[in-house]
Amino acid sequence: MSKSNYQSYLENMQKYADVEYSIAVLSWDKEVNLPSKGAAARSRQVATLSGIAHEIFTNKAFGATLQSLANNGSDLDEREKRNIELTHKDFERINKFDTDFVMRRSKLISTTFHAWLEAREKNDFSIYEKPLTELMDLKIEEAEIIGYKAHPYNALLEEFEPGATVADLDVLFKDVRNQLVDFASKIRSKSEIDNSFLRKKYAKDKQWEFGIEILKNIGYDFEAGRQDISTHPFTTNFSATDVRVTTRIDENDFGNMTWSCIHEGGHALYEQGLPHADYGLPTGKYVSLGIHESQSRLWENNVGRSLPFWKAHYPKLQKAFPENLSTVSLETFYKGINKIAPNLIRTESDELHYHFHVLIRYEIEKGLIEKSIKVKDLPEVWNAKYKEYLGVEVPNDKEGVLQDIHWSHGSIGYFPTYSLGSFYAAQFFAQAKKDIPDIITQIENGDSSNLLKWLRDKIHQHGRFYDANDLCKKVTGEKLNFKYFMDYVNEKYKDIYQL
Amino acid sequence: MSKSNYQSYLENMQKYADVEYSIAVLSWDKEVNLPSKGAAARSRQVATLSGIAHEIFTNKAFGATLQSLANNGSDLDEREKRNIELTHKDFERINKFDTDFVMRRSKLISTTFHAWLEAREKNDFSIYEKPLTELMDLKIEEAEIIGYKAHPYNALLEEFEPGATVADLDVLFKDVRNQLVDFASKIRSKSEIDNSFLRKKYAKDKQWEFGIEILKNIGYDFEAGRQDISTHPFTTNFSATDVRVTTRIDENDFGNMTWSCIHEGGHALYEQGLPHADYGLPTGKYVSLGIHESQSRLWENNVGRSLPFWKAHYPKLQKAFPENLSTVSLETFYKGINKIAPNLIRTESDELHYHFHVLIRYEIEKGLIEKSIKVKDLPEVWNAKYKEYLGVEVPNDKEGVLQDIHWSHGSIGYFPTYSLGSFYAAQFFAQAKKDIPDIITQIENGDSSNLLKWLRDKIHQHGRFYDANDLCKKVTGEKLNFKYFMDYVNEKYKDIYQL
Repeated sequence: MSKSNYQSYLENMQKYADVEYSIAVLSWDKEVNLPSKGAAARSRQVATLSGIAHEIFTNKAFGATLQSLANNGSDLDEREKRNIELTHKDFERINKFDTDFVMRRSKLISTTFHAWLEAREKNDFSIYEKPLTELMDLKIEEAEIIGYKAHPYNALLEEFEPGATVADLDVLFKDVRNQLVDFASKIRSKSEIDNSFLRKKYAKDKQWEFGIEILKNIGYDFEAGRQDISTHPFTTNFSATDVRVTTRIDENDFGNMTWSCIHEGGHALYEQGLPHADYGLPTGKYVSLGIHESQSRLWENNVGRSLPFWKAHYPKLQKAFPENLSTVSLETFYKGINKIAPNLIRTESDELHYHFHVLIRYEIEKGLIEKSIKVKDLPEVWNAKYKEYLGVEVPNDKEGVLQDIHWSHGSIGYFPTYSLGSFYAAQFFAQAKKDIPDIITQIENGDSSNLLKWLRDKIHQHGRFYDANDLCKKVTGEKLNFKYFMDYVNEKYKDIYQL
Repeated sequence: MSKSNYQSYLENMQKYADVEYSIAVLSWDKEVNLPSKGAAARSRQVATLSGIAHEIFTNKAFGATLQSLANNGSDLDEREKRNIELTHKDFERINKFDTDFVMRRSKLISTTFHAWLEAREKNDFSIYEKPLTELMDLKIEEAEIIGYKAHPYNALLEEFEPGATVADLDVLFKDVRNQLVDFASKIRSKSEIDNSFLRKKYAKDKQWEFGIEILKNIGYDFEAGRQDISTHPFTTNFSATDVRVTTRIDENDFGNMTWSCIHEGGHALYEQGLPHADYGLPTGKYVSLGIHESQSRLWENNVGRSLPFWKAHYPKLQKAFPENLSTVSLETFYKGINKIAPNLIRTESDELHYHFHVLIRYEIEKGLIEKSIKVKDLPEVWNAKYKEYLGVEVPNDKEGVLQDIHWSHGSIGYFPTYSLGSFYAAQFFAQAKKDIPDIITQIENGDSSNLLKWLRDKIHQHGRFYDANDLCKKVTGEKLNFKYFMDYVNEKYKDIYQL
């Protein structure tokens, strides 16, 4: 009985995936190809498909199938049971919201998003204040509808990082404050690294070729994906065998493309490594945004900004751009690409200061949801925290509180996953070095295939079978521990900055 | 009452269009971008969306709305009435087929298509014979289900060319046989034109740039479309403001890209000219395949292979490829691009012999449907007709009866629309010359904007409001008349071949 129910569950999930992936194709095309006049029709096409997808996932018959499988699924195997458990949880969560709430949220997000665009354009926070205040009230309402233990923010975190809690994040970000603020400040007192060679003229077509080479080298499968150009680099997928990345190229900034390429490549390697046979099922999907980000950050930073990696690739790079690099030594290059300097803008930040950007957003989000911070005070709160943690003065709200899109989309609980990504990455990479003793030598020789195999085996193949906490314990023997990130940066920057 | 019913009709039609256009995006992406391993998932995504689209269009509630509007629509305006009439007709047609028939047809087409692929690959018609025989029986059954007057082929024609009949096509193709066979044969007796300069090496990037320039020049709006590369050139659209063309480039054949560019550009100008506000409605759609083809052929042949057109553009072309063309005069070039020579392959044919290819397929299709020709005799029948009409020996079935995909897809009644396209084009262009006396001078000056304006006004803006026959009468004062095509080729080729 439950086997035939499982079959009907499977068919509905795959149908749902077909529509969701179709939306992803339309969205990818929008970012990569869409002619300007095509935007209005594309919006309505995506909206219609979204409505259809929602109906496929939330319909009552499907709910009954799930309930029946949850109650009488004893003959299912572990993987099937886990799929039912996760889908049932997703189903329950989405069905807590009535149509009225969903409509109100959707309208308010649209209003807030447009207010944010205008506020940023005009550098005038007051335009954003009222809709954002209403949106935060609605997010508090959303948390109440979902329900939570201990803190309403936990309810919102669940959407992006299932299992994450304020209790854990408080510990983590306290460590960031206590250990990383001082560490970064010590580096800022050292003499500045000159990396102006990164901002010479690098021809676009040669950058593109180099990026493709790097993607191939780290194991990205171009028969199961492609790279294109878009304004903001991103990774998307329409199955585990069609995973696409995008990049952008700045002729006067070599780093812009290179590390976005490796970062998106890391996301893509994860998606290409998910179980192909579990199309549409939780066990065919990524664990959480934090784990997804761990894969991009591991390749971008732990590998892609390391000396061993560039020992292998720098000669090719010098050959491609002799006019800029023939007189720049590998060591100078390595130091240059790891220059630490505080920056107002999160997306342009170095890998240390980055976490202060996230810390600040975490503290503010928590404050907004527990009502200890008011939207109208945001610019003031923001600027004070940037002064305290990064030591920088914020000259205007455009480069301050208005810089990120997330809040205007109602995404509260998203930012912490960025830092979680780096911290998981450090912990995973430390474990990989233990498990594969000569991994660094392999990377120096331009061969990261065993690292990828390790990631496939330890992380990718499981899909959502384990949640982030369990996965971390299973892979590394302990829960997420900030120590690994501090070990990583200590070891790395003591050489670079002679600490 | 009927106004609110019309609103509900409109919403369902636009929802249907959203899903159909989404399928078109997925299909475009498949031809232009898809990595090889993405094919399986893409197939199921398209199949799922097709099922959803079918359900949206054929559901009973929608049928009831249509019926009610058809019965009590007196307060609708003419355009609304026409939309209801056409949609009702489409609805009735599609609902004549029960699920069993649709499933059988879909399976048989899949079998036949794969048999065709294999038969063509192995140059072995016998592999194709059995499934094609079954498919022809099913097409006869289909014609019976649809119903028809006079001839079962009429029922099948209706899908591609509403209003076309065997009676009319017999007259038309009799004219082709009586007038064009002799005319072409007379040209074949003349000395051959040397156009080997077209097959020198033409750099791909310069061809691409030239193609883009030509598209812009004829009025294709790149803000409402784009051009990409694909194996077979095609035009598709996701609204009237997102109309995309593709082309292919052969480094050793300048003509391959150029006229496919202009041909697809002609299709695209039609789609970009359809009423934007009638998204999803018949009045926002093209009339028929024949009328669609008239737009591509008019630009490709009547304009794009004319002396006035190249008076304007040849200097630019010479400048782009001086190594190939600096010593080739405009007159030599013009003759070269209009060389007449029989060819086994329809898609590579000149604009005269092309119609014998279609004539042969028309005679065979009619014979298959009325059972005067058997599938097993196809190779023999085919080869005899090629000998008779084109004067060529068919060396093998791969270059003969196996060359086209259409029959394997169950598309019977499609081929005649190709010839209808050229004949409508000649008649429309003759009328345009009457209505805009100095149109030729304008084209000589590189300005075809008034021709496009005329097409927009006379043809594009009406969408499907008029059927092909009525549209032709409205634009030219008479029904389709082969005379205009003969006038066009007589006038053109008497100069080129000194007839």
